[in-house]
Amino acid sequence: MTVKTDAATSGSEFDERTAEETRQLAAWASATEFDDLPSSVVEFSKQLILDHIGVAIGGMDHEATLIALDLARALGGNPQATILGHGDRTGAMNAALVNGISSHVHDYDDTHIPTILHPTGPIMSAALALAEMHGASGKDLIRAHAVAVEVSARASLAIFPEHYDAGWHMSGTTGTLGAATAAALLAGASPPQLVAALGIGATQASGQREQFGAMTKSLHVGKAGANGVLAALLASRGFTAAPDSLQGRRGMFSVMSSAARSEALTAGLGRDWEIFRVGVKPYSCGVVAHPPIDAVKRLHTELGIEPDEIERIQLRVNPLVVELTGKKEPRTGLEGKFSVAFCAAIAMIDGAAGPRQFTDEAVVRADVVALRDRIHPEADETVNHSQAVATAYLRDGRSVTVEVAAASGTPENPLTADELRAKFNDLVVPMLGERQAAELVEGVERLETCDRVEELIATAVRGGGARG
Amino acid sequence: MTVKTDAATSGSEFDERTAEETRQLAAWASATEFDDLPSSVVEFSKQLILDHIGVAIGGMDHEATLIALDLARALGGNPQATILGHGDRTGAMNAALVNGISSHVHDYDDTHIPTILHPTGPIMSAALALAEMHGASGKDLIRAHAVAVEVSARASLAIFPEHYDAGWHMSGTTGTLGAATAAALLAGASPPQLVAALGIGATQASGQREQFGAMTKSLHVGKAGANGVLAALLASRGFTAAPDSLQGRRGMFSVMSSAARSEALTAGLGRDWEIFRVGVKPYSCGVVAHPPIDAVKRLHTELGIEPDEIERIQLRVNPLVVELTGKKEPRTGLEGKFSVAFCAAIAMIDGAAGPRQFTDEAVVRADVVALRDRIHPEADETVNHSQAVATAYLRDGRSVTVEVAAASGTPENPLTADELRAKFNDLVVPMLGERQAAELVEGVERLETCDRVEELIATAVRGGGARG
Repeated sequence: MTVKTDAATSGSEFDERTAEETRQLAAWASATEFDDLPSSVVEFSKQLILDHIGVAIGGMDHEATLIALDLARALGGNPQATILGHGDRTGAMNAALVNGISSHVHDYDDTHIPTILHPTGPIMSAALALAEMHGASGKDLIRAHAVAVEVSARASLAIFPEHYDAGWHMSGTTGTLGAATAAALLAGASPPQLVAALGIGATQASGQREQFGAMTKSLHVGKAGANGVLAALLASRGFTAAPDSLQGRRGMFSVMSSAARSEALTAGLGRDWEIFRVGVKPYSCGVVAHPPIDAVKRLHTELGIEPDEIERIQLRVNPLVVELTGKKEPRTGLEGKFSVAFCAAIAMIDGAAGPRQFTDEAVVRADVVALRDRIHPEADETVNHSQAVATAYLRDGRSVTVEVAAASGTPENPLTADELRAKFNDLVVPMLGERQAAELVEGVERLETCDRVEELIATAVRGGGARG
Repeated sequence: MTVKTDAATSGSEFDERTAEETRQLAAWASATEFDDLPSSVVEFSKQLILDHIGVAIGGMDHEATLIALDLARALGGNPQATILGHGDRTGAMNAALVNGISSHVHDYDDTHIPTILHPTGPIMSAALALAEMHGASGKDLIRAHAVAVEVSARASLAIFPEHYDAGWHMSGTTGTLGAATAAALLAGASPPQLVAALGIGATQASGQREQFGAMTKSLHVGKAGANGVLAALLASRGFTAAPDSLQGRRGMFSVMSSAARSEALTAGLGRDWEIFRVGVKPYSCGVVAHPPIDAVKRLHTELGIEPDEIERIQLRVNPLVVELTGKKEPRTGLEGKFSVAFCAAIAMIDGAAGPRQFTDEAVVRADVVALRDRIHPEADETVNHSQAVATAYLRDGRSVTVEVAAASGTPENPLTADELRAKFNDLVVPMLGERQAAELVEGVERLETCDRVEELIATAVRGGGARG
């Protein structure tokens, strides 16, 4: 027999057993072309794509990435797709795996604020591989990214917070749906094949929050990317999934969440863009820790308080901050991300909380530990995810308070263009040098005029890009 | 920097944060050598390994396998491991993926009866790849299989039935733990690396029951195998997982089940062998359908009833039979497996319910459909998973009843050696011919004397084995 590539699945009609919301979402995703995207969506998508390239290159030499790279080299593969930074070309799944890990390993990638999904890591890890395989253009890439953000963010909204509260890491679960969508669109999947790709993605969705603080957390994003590639490449070859994989009785939503609001898949689709609720991180740690970091940092930058003056800092934070980042004595750089007291302390002292602050050496620095132990987070249900209040009790008896209403990097308080560029350069210049960093910025700025994304990718590897 | 291969994880001590049962299980798995296995365990392990090779080769030309094979060829990979039947050598993950799919695609692989886990498919898909990579012996393979069956069966017991009832496909979830264990043992992982491999496996665990009836069901087993390989190869390179990935607050057990009995991981470990609760299937469909198939088949074989004589058959079955196999009008061979009425009808008419009975043609055969529509399953909570009662109401006014107390293929009513051989030959002879089938049987019979498993694997491909 021959492999069936389209007879079973390329008809224009959906299976009647597929639930209405899934059908509408897939139909919309398939029908939405680059020219249908509002220019503001295109511009913001490009910002997120640039930020993704920055964080992925910034993570290229992290130990977790290097282990995965070593494994990818051992496994081998046809030269379909490039591993960012290192430049190896290998099979699409392995490339997506390594690129996904490096994009998340610093906990520095973007966040869909309402659901704590990190949308772009899984999507771009899959999309870059498929774009390279299929000779896609910059417009194709932007369209795949922007549409896939909507799909994964809406799937997240359908099952958040119950799904997350149960212990699932959204970026490994609904992130897979984003990756599958982007990969399927770039593979030229028909609408029913996109439904199948979503189904194959849904049943691979995984990633438990227990892994927060271990290398395996970043594996979730790598696997979401690779699993999305697998879903798209199987579906486009006619591999069948259950017709109602998302909304069916034993499908992803009901198995992985105690409640599902499937109307979120379609409400305001194409009008209310979830991409605009995505934030770009100024600090390379969990987004929940950002408001308290802002608050403590501002004690210094705005009020001029020095660490030595401080007797103790009382932090009022959303309860999730304490649950997720309540570690008191982190032992490694990775664990440091899960200690809001450490994050806030080093941000105040160094004026930054980037990858250089989350090293095994930094978490045990005497000056940082001394301040860390005087910072006391306290759960307060009246404080939302974007807020925090820091009150510093000073050795001279005074006390001062900073209130953060919308954390830096949230849609209400976005990074400026200069801050975005500074973050990108801070990550990429040490790895690829100033020339390539500048070429990448320029390449993404005019991405919609790029005929082949592989030109951009060639600039995103050591020793790549235009010469001289 | 260099990739850390052992400094962080090869110490003999476990992380103090790992729960006691996980530590004990990992310590036992690491310490149990081939010579520690009771001879009855070795013999039964070999039966399951032979059955696995049979079902995997039997599935080699199924459309789902061929699509996955086509994809594996496109992805490419170094020649680490062999795809059974076809003989392609590729990267270990891709080989495990395709082999896992082919081993499950006929729903003909073995079953841990208490939990409906199919243990050997994921385990052997990973183990054969690692055995080939590392030049393992037959003893190494048997040890890895037998130990891994205990690990995955015990993890299943810890969360069954809540986990299954929620909609998870055990073979994709706890199956991953079995695959990770076997792969880690064959990769020479240290005890703490085995804990890490279990953690990396746990957080990849996935597979929703909604996919029953679609090709993607068999993907669950392929992914369990490939994900187990990934877990072992990452862990043996020093990739870190959370210390308490199974039993921790946000770990696999609590995230994926509403109840967990972790004592099942260790109770009677090394004394009460779960492998002896594994059944080998006589019919290529879900194990829950086996008792009613037996019952209806015996109406003919034991009581001499012919289909034409039957007005209607009332089937009293465990409620799960109706839930899982309640389809009334299956449209494809795969869907036929989820229609107990179809399964029973064709088994009575053909005297068999193997892969040749579950084709798209067979499900619409007029004689089968006519009998199928006269068979009525009825849920009865007093009937357990291994039981069924069939009452046939005949056109002449009589009625006859057959009661099945322990279905064929269960530990209480195992297949005979002849039946096992007949099943193997029925699957393998059409694919590889009689000579190779016989060589494989002989090869597994003396597997503990085999120096390199790759010799056996070389016989399990078309055109392989000893010549003339």
